[in-house]
Amino acid sequence: MKDTEEHITMLHGAGGQVMHSLVENYILKYFGGANVEVPLEALDDAAVVGDVVFKSDTHAVKPIFFPGGDIGRLAVSGTVNDIAVIGAEPYALACGLVLEEGLSLVDFERILASMNKTCSEASVSIVTGDTKVVEKGVLGGCVITISGIGRRTTATEKNLTVIKEFRNDFNARWILDSNLGVGDKIIVSGTLGDHGLAVLSAQEGLKFGSGIESDVKPLNVLIRRLLDEIGGVVAMKDPTRGGLADALNEFSEKSGKGILIQEDKVPIRKDVQTACEMLGLDPLEVGNEGKIVLGVVEAKAEQVLELLKGTSAGENAEIIGQVTNEFKGVAMQTVVGGKKIIARPIGDPIPRIC
Amino acid sequence: MKDTEEHITMLHGAGGQVMHSLVENYILKYFGGANVEVPLEALDDAAVVGDVVFKSDTHAVKPIFFPGGDIGRLAVSGTVNDIAVIGAEPYALACGLVLEEGLSLVDFERILASMNKTCSEASVSIVTGDTKVVEKGVLGGCVITISGIGRRTTATEKNLTVIKEFRNDFNARWILDSNLGVGDKIIVSGTLGDHGLAVLSAQEGLKFGSGIESDVKPLNVLIRRLLDEIGGVVAMKDPTRGGLADALNEFSEKSGKGILIQEDKVPIRKDVQTACEMLGLDPLEVGNEGKIVLGVVEAKAEQVLELLKGTSAGENAEIIGQVTNEFKGVAMQTVVGGKKIIARPIGDPIPRIC
Repeated sequence: MKDTEEHITMLHGAGGQVMHSLVENYILKYFGGANVEVPLEALDDAAVVGDVVFKSDTHAVKPIFFPGGDIGRLAVSGTVNDIAVIGAEPYALACGLVLEEGLSLVDFERILASMNKTCSEASVSIVTGDTKVVEKGVLGGCVITISGIGRRTTATEKNLTVIKEFRNDFNARWILDSNLGVGDKIIVSGTLGDHGLAVLSAQEGLKFGSGIESDVKPLNVLIRRLLDEIGGVVAMKDPTRGGLADALNEFSEKSGKGILIQEDKVPIRKDVQTACEMLGLDPLEVGNEGKIVLGVVEAKAEQVLELLKGTSAGENAEIIGQVTNEFKGVAMQTVVGGKKIIARPIGDPIPRIC
Repeated sequence: MKDTEEHITMLHGAGGQVMHSLVENYILKYFGGANVEVPLEALDDAAVVGDVVFKSDTHAVKPIFFPGGDIGRLAVSGTVNDIAVIGAEPYALACGLVLEEGLSLVDFERILASMNKTCSEASVSIVTGDTKVVEKGVLGGCVITISGIGRRTTATEKNLTVIKEFRNDFNARWILDSNLGVGDKIIVSGTLGDHGLAVLSAQEGLKFGSGIESDVKPLNVLIRRLLDEIGGVVAMKDPTRGGLADALNEFSEKSGKGILIQEDKVPIRKDVQTACEMLGLDPLEVGNEGKIVLGVVEAKAEQVLELLKGTSAGENAEIIGQVTNEFKGVAMQTVVGGKKIIARPIGDPIPRIC
């Protein structure tokens, strides 16, 4: 693997172990150490600087239009969701566009209209930005970077108050990967793998039965309801690159706790499961763009589940597992009996989906 | 020009009239209208949302290393300067990296180290980010988007207090392109065209005499001194794409005033002037990355100039002109006599330099 050591390869961007090494050995070496509340080295979904939650996410998906979405909807949702899962309300976005020479203005306008619609759903505004044009190449039309800022709300505070009713040692001000405690329930808001399979089908021209669509959507309004109406959410992530497997490993490593999930509880569409089997993919490693994974204090888990199930974005939500101190890492109780270790994926099993 | 109408072309990214049309007919159509203090449609250097100044800038320069700088230093300086010229202090950055497959890790590390050094010079931190890898193509190694947030400081307030001593109708809270008043002096902080020529020489393998280097640098510390120690700066821009010609036209259009500059006062290095003549370029249209153009109340112009001249970044500063109500637009008193109209460039005269 000499090449992997000396040059950037696709694996470096795939959300698995190779990417984590790149971030730790290069990015953190130069950019770590800033004295802020949630710094870069926390590698959480967003940074906290003073009272501002700050995040930037770059999307380079190909093709730029896919079943259920497009790169514009993806870029806006990605940043909005990263800010929301830390417990903040996103309120302003900046848009960096890299347009490839030859992109049709009709396609460009479709993407702008889709971003505008997604912003409306999320109640956020794009307030600044920058546009660059690059020579025709292999980007597939454009690359979009959306940065966003978010703030604390009454929902942020209510959620923390509820947590403290059950965990008197809890003193985090935000919803962080490192907050999980023994007994917390792990919830996913819906079926896994839809986005990755939808993009893969568009990339490869594959047809999977009835047609799998991306789940890409902004979840901040739903998340705000969860925090405001119920509370008790200690950790939260949107399982994008690397899928559920990567998200749970982040939770486990940063919290120093074990996580045991139940295979029969993990919601996966039948057609996604079948397509994954055909393609040799593990749906737990496939990325999602409209789902959240939550760690919730045990006493509030059923209420969180109920609220989720009453919404279109969360109708297939399930409590899939629990935090434990019986082991480290992530394991799954399989339907055939026995436990299987869920490792951090080495790379993304499929081409870039975000 | 049917192609320009229907597809993205390099001209759409070049900072001239074609780009302005793209922004007005597409970007503002979908993203305009947000109810914030300095919105997108002001097309100023950064947006103001509540007390946060917010900006995102994308850099796709080729080659990624050029005389006097690299894409990392350029990206950090670009966003830092855009926030500083509105009168705010940048304090946290987000870094979106698009790495091209095949980029050597040695080059990647050089860029990270350069960004780190530039952040130190500017006293800012990179606190969050995202990295994507794309297939090998024509990007030249990487594209970097730096977003940043800034805040008001005592220097912001002092500057406004000084302005109000001379302009009792002045009620802007920030340094905006639209703030110019008749009689204000126009100052540039140093020689023009150095960055564009340096990148062009690297792109084309040209040698221009003694070697022209990019001026790329963060200017926020210098700008803070100007506001804090002297004040009276009503408008400020860093003249990047489109150069001084574009910056002055922005000032003029948004303020509804004329600007008359003196050709013999505009600082241009002899070798840059010669190279521009050889290549048929107008140095007023060539981009800079370490210079500012200021509109200053007349009574403070000499003091601003003196402070600038005492610094390494401003040693070649000059008062180049004045705001007038005798005409609209931008004109230059030439050394041979007579006035020449300085129009907004149609596109960048040279390949992308930022």
